[in-house]
This record gives sequence, C-alpha cells and structure tokens, in this order.
Amino acid sequence: MPRDADITRERIIAAARKLYYGQGIRSASIDAIAARAGVTKKTFYYHFRSKDDVIAVSLQSRDQPALDIVAGWLNGPGTLAKRLAAVFEGVAPLATNPRWKGCGFLRTVAELASTPGHPAVKAGAAHKKKMEALFADAFRAEGLSKPEDRARQVMILFDGALTEMFVHRDPDYAKAAGRMAALLANN
Amino acid sequence: MPRDADITRERIIAAARKLYYGQGIRSASIDAIAARAGVTKKTFYYHFRSKDDVIAVSLQSRDQPALDIVAGWLNGPGTLAKRLAAVFEGVAPLATNPRWKGCGFLRTVAELASTPGHPAVKAGAAHKKKMEALFADAFRAEGLSKPEDRARQVMILFDGALTEMFVHRDPDYAKAAGRMAALLANN
Repeated sequence: MPRDADITRERIIAAARKLYYGQGIRSASIDAIAARAGVTKKTFYYHFRSKDDVIAVSLQSRDQPALDIVAGWLNGPGTLAKRLAAVFEGVAPLATNPRWKGCGFLRTVAELASTPGHPAVKAGAAHKKKMEALFADAFRAEGLSKPEDRARQVMILFDGALTEMFVHRDPDYAKAAGRMAALLANN
Repeated sequence: MPRDADITRERIIAAARKLYYGQGIRSASIDAIAARAGVTKKTFYYHFRSKDDVIAVSLQSRDQPALDIVAGWLNGPGTLAKRLAAVFEGVAPLATNPRWKGCGFLRTVAELASTPGHPAVKAGAAHKKKMEALFADAFRAEGLSKPEDRARQVMILFDGALTEMFVHRDPDYAKAAGRMAALLANN
C-alpha cells in the first residue's frame, strides 16, 4: 500500500506532466503545478528540489510507458517487416488527434536548447537511446546483420515521422516512414 | 539605398532571431530584443504589432536563406544520389557545433505547441513544405516516378536526422539518413 507521501508525489508529477505537455515548460509555473496538484508550495518543495528537478522527473515518468507501447507493437505477431510497419501505423492516428501536441521528449529537448546539460535534456536523450535499443534487439532477434545501424535508421524515421506529423498534422508521414522502415527488415 | 526605417526594422529582426534561437521564444522578452537592437520599445512597436508578430517575421527571415543552402547542395554537380547524400553531409557538422541549437523552425513549432494557429507555427510548416517541394523538383528533373512520395521520404529523413543530431550531438545520424536518402534516387 503506497504511503501518503508517495501518493502526493505522484499527484505533483501528474500535474507537472499535464501542464508542461499542454502549455510548455517555460509557461507552466511551480505555482500552477502546486495548485493543480492541490498542494502548497511548501509541500511541493518537500518533494522536489527545484523546477528543473520536477521537469526531469515528470518527463522520466513517461519513459517506460512510451517504451512499453512501442515494444508492444514491435514484439507482436507476424514478420519483422510487418511489426516495424505496425509501429508507424500505431503512431499515425496521433497526427489528427487534437490532444496530441507532439513527442514530449523531443519538445522538452527543444524547449531546453539553451541549457544542454539540463537533467530533462539528458532524460530525453536517454529515452531515445532506449527506444533505439528496442529496435536493435528486434533486428538482432532475427539474426540480421548490423542491427545497430538498422536501428539507427528506424529511429531517424520514427522521430522524423513524429516531427512531420506534428508540423503538418498529416498521418501520411507516418505511413511513408513505415514503408521505409519495413524495408530495413530485408536481408 | 534602404531607408533608415528599413535598417531599424532589420536590426530588430536580427536581434529577435539571435535571442529566440539562443534562449528560446518564451524566455526572450520584447525588452531584451529592443535593448539588443538598440531601440526603444516605442520604436519596436512602430515596426511590429506584437511579440507574436516579431516571432513570425524573425523566423520567416531564415526561410529563403535555409532553402538556398539546401538547394545549393541538392542542385550541384553529380548524380542525384550523390547530391542527396551531399545534403546530409552538409548538415552533419552542425551536430558537434556548440553554436548550433537545433533546427529553428522545428524548435519554434515545438515551443508554440500550445498555440497551433500561431503565425510562426504556420511559417515553420510553410518552410518545411517548401523544402519538401525542393526535393520533389529534384526527383522530377530526373524523370523518376512518384516524385512527391520520394520527397516526403527525404523530408522525414532530413528532419529525423536534424532531430537525432540535436538530441545526441552525433553526426552519424546525418550519415545514416544520407545513405537511405541516396537510395531514393534509384528507379
């Protein structure tokens, strides 16, 4: 059974995630996060050292869930070509979903471009490396040559597709990227 | 000979571009832009209606220069495969350039995710569409089938490469994307 303090911490993280994703990191204040979580600023600072800390922790809270979603598509039934295509078919509907405001990891790294060593920038980069490793594992499991090179190419297509989908709100970019990704499963 | 007012306007645009790219759109104030340009806020507001206006205009000021750089690589000598690879070789050194803070168009769209109709978001999307049209023209000039589909795939690779290069500060992503792009010049 979780402790009350853990529940409060999770509530602050959820509020931060929601506000940062909805409004952007620079726009959402600690006051707004505390108010949304229903806690005082004193309680906020009991759980988090600083705004930088809560930015990083709230982004990290999406790390494993996002990896699990992609792994679910990638490690499902069928040929690897079909499963790679499934990853891109999986994200395609986001393009026209008005609640989707782009990849939170990429947006965070972009918003914090002036502070490259920021813990949230590191968390964003680490997430993308883990995603790339998922793709490499899938190529390795098929016994394909150069799994790391292929994974890197899928990763470029994946983040390229997410980026174009967000800029143009057009799911066709995901489909075009998925066709190229499926070819990477060839010998 | 440019009028003084034109020179002042250009100076404000240059100051805005520098501060927005260096610090981010949300962080750079009108006061800071006016100070950097050496003008009063009254002069600023003689030239620009609002912060949103100067964000859009300063981004647009990079539209044609960025297209010209890519067109220079794409329309140089050699086969189309080599010229497509040259585009990616051209951007690769940015990854390790500490002054490079990612693609300004993509960063602007990311920072303004909460205001999708913002004129700068439209300017960013329009720039990316023009870049895609450059690639389509290159495929069309070679008489290749489905030039728009190929251009869309190059665009995904291009923005995917810029994104990974910025997240990981690793030029190998540009090279990996360039190898895939060169294949798109095949029949």
